[in-house]
Amino acid sequence: DSNLKVFTLNSNPKLAQEIADIIGTELGACSVTRFSDGEIQINIEESIRGCDVYIVQSTSDPVNQHIMELLIMIDALKRASAKTINIVIPYYGYARQDRKARAREPITSKLVANLIETAGATRLITLDLHAPQIQGFFDIPIDHLIGVPILSDYFEAKHFEDLVIVSPDHGGVTRARKMADRLKAPIAIIDKRRPKPNVAEVMNIVGNVEGKTAILIDDIIDTAGTITLAANALIENGAKEVYACCTHPVLSGPAIERIQSSRISELVVTNSIALPESKRFEKITELSVAPLIAEAIIRVHEKLSVSTLFD
Amino acid sequence: DSNLKVFTLNSNPKLAQEIADIIGTELGACSVTRFSDGEIQINIEESIRGCDVYIVQSTSDPVNQHIMELLIMIDALKRASAKTINIVIPYYGYARQDRKARAREPITSKLVANLIETAGATRLITLDLHAPQIQGFFDIPIDHLIGVPILSDYFEAKHFEDLVIVSPDHGGVTRARKMADRLKAPIAIIDKRRPKPNVAEVMNIVGNVEGKTAILIDDIIDTAGTITLAANALIENGAKEVYACCTHPVLSGPAIERIQSSRISELVVTNSIALPESKRFEKITELSVAPLIAEAIIRVHEKLSVSTLFD
Ligand SMILES: Nc1ncnc2c1ncn2[C@@H]1O[C@H](COP(=O)(O)O)[C@@H](O)[C@H]1O
Ligand SMILES: Nc1ncnc2c1ncn2[C@@H]1O[C@H](COP(=O)(O)O)[C@@H](O)[C@H]1O
Repeated sequence: DSNLKVFTLNSNPKLAQEIADIIGTELGACSVTRFSDGEIQINIEESIRGCDVYIVQSTSDPVNQHIMELLIMIDALKRASAKTINIVIPYYGYARQDRKARAREPITSKLVANLIETAGATRLITLDLHAPQIQGFFDIPIDHLIGVPILSDYFEAKHFEDLVIVSPDHGGVTRARKMADRLKAPIAIIDKRRPKPNVAEVMNIVGNVEGKTAILIDDIIDTAGTITLAANALIENGAKEVYACCTHPVLSGPAIERIQSSRISELVVTNSIALPESKRFEKITELSVAPLIAEAIIRVHEKLSVSTLFD
Repeated sequence: DSNLKVFTLNSNPKLAQEIADIIGTELGACSVTRFSDGEIQINIEESIRGCDVYIVQSTSDPVNQHIMELLIMIDALKRASAKTINIVIPYYGYARQDRKARAREPITSKLVANLIETAGATRLITLDLHAPQIQGFFDIPIDHLIGVPILSDYFEAKHFEDLVIVSPDHGGVTRARKMADRLKAPIAIIDKRRPKPNVAEVMNIVGNVEGKTAILIDDIIDTAGTITLAANALIENGAKEVYACCTHPVLSGPAIERIQSSRISELVVTNSIALPESKRFEKITELSVAPLIAEAIIRVHEKLSVSTLFD
């Protein structure tokens, strides 16, 4: 369908190429560079008048750069008479600033939602938002895909016996439950609490992990503090082996070092965030969300329901 | 007036401090840092409920970072019940992307105007917009200050005889005219044209510069190509000495080297953009716009006319 155009910006060119290959199209001709003073310069090198355009861009580190690339691209497409401007944000950054936890905090994920709509996007396809409530920050339609099936399929193929799926905190229990259903395994929860202020946290485990293979699942692994402490607690409580997985490998600061030196045997992630060479190491396995996103784009474009990709 | 609060973000903390000193207030308590993954974290550490808040931030390099700091700060202030959110942008970045010069170009300066309004700013104070039309991109009130008086006063104190004020291109003639009026000098214009495609430009000079001290004036000096070529053309046409000045010293890429090795005796700029140590050199003189901006803030706050600061 020559009316469907897929463009990439600078955050995930490889993923965008994979998506275009699956759809059977070429990436739109476009250069996204910078002027001498650091301002972003975008040249769209083919007509998109009347087209349904899909832009692939995660708002991952460097997040402010990637957000501005996205907004400027949307502006250019709008002024060039695109029919629809569909933005594909595999990793939605600033998602942890989603509420006023303290006085005078910004709610940056709502701000970014407003910026995207102001620029002129007409639809958003995204994956595992840190909080599903962020969907309500948008007034345009959203297709919210989930990574659990991809991660589950990978582990299913390993045919583990005596498995337990573990949520590293209370917030992630629903996600662990979804994976457990797929793998027909029980769940456990790491129940962190601080007995008194200024006393180290206690890692209590709710559920039975003794002698089992444990799979820790989270949406984002950032500095990897939570996940590596959880892995150690699992081993101390008798787990046989610990795997970890997440949709979004932010892996900032000490993350790689912590995972390397932890009891985690393998870390399974998706390519929602492009991993630079410096973050690739032996223990890490990357799964592609390209088939999932390509399928969503095809269904949106053919006006079919996307909802079966949600669960 | 305890209802007036001045905050700085990370682009111009020194200028903001000078402005606060002139107004006779302290800078608002606020930390603007980054999370481990590069996301901006803003903590406003004092109540601003019901206050008239002024935020000082140029959208200079790193421009995307500085824009996002500004937008997130506006969001936080809005949610913390500031009465008015006045943004002071001494240098408004992306101003050269102000029209569709070619097909499918974005109009980023309009986009940024929309983003600022969406975030919740209620007024803008700015200085020497690259094109005055950018004022029309905003629906909120704008006070548009100009740098010519500050630059002119500096040169006036030198009591040059036989002066000529030179615009380096056709777009800057109005600005040169304003300076010439103040210094009671004639103007000249560098009239660049390309005789044929792929033939070097010819620098023709409209006006008499022979034996005179020439002052080149521009709004922005970025890579300094135009201004240094203009200076050489002036000397070749008999000018005795060449000075250059601008409001916004972007000075990217080869700028410093070009100016150093040019016929320009002195470059006079303002602190609308903070100069890092690496861009300070013997030939450069920096004038402060703090008194001008402080005066504008005081007048806005006291509901007096700012228009006499425009000319
Ligand atoms: N980029 C970030 N890196 C680390 N922490 C963050 C980031 N953004 C927000 N936060 C903090 O993370 C907390 C929210 O995380 P959560 O409770 O997992 O939703 C809030 O207290 C935020 O201040
Ligand atoms: N940051 C920038 N650095 C250099 N050139 C730019 C920048 N932004 C826009 N431009 C170009 O500058 C031209 C407009 O400059 P002007 O004619 O001086 O208004 C346009 O052709 C733009 O493509």
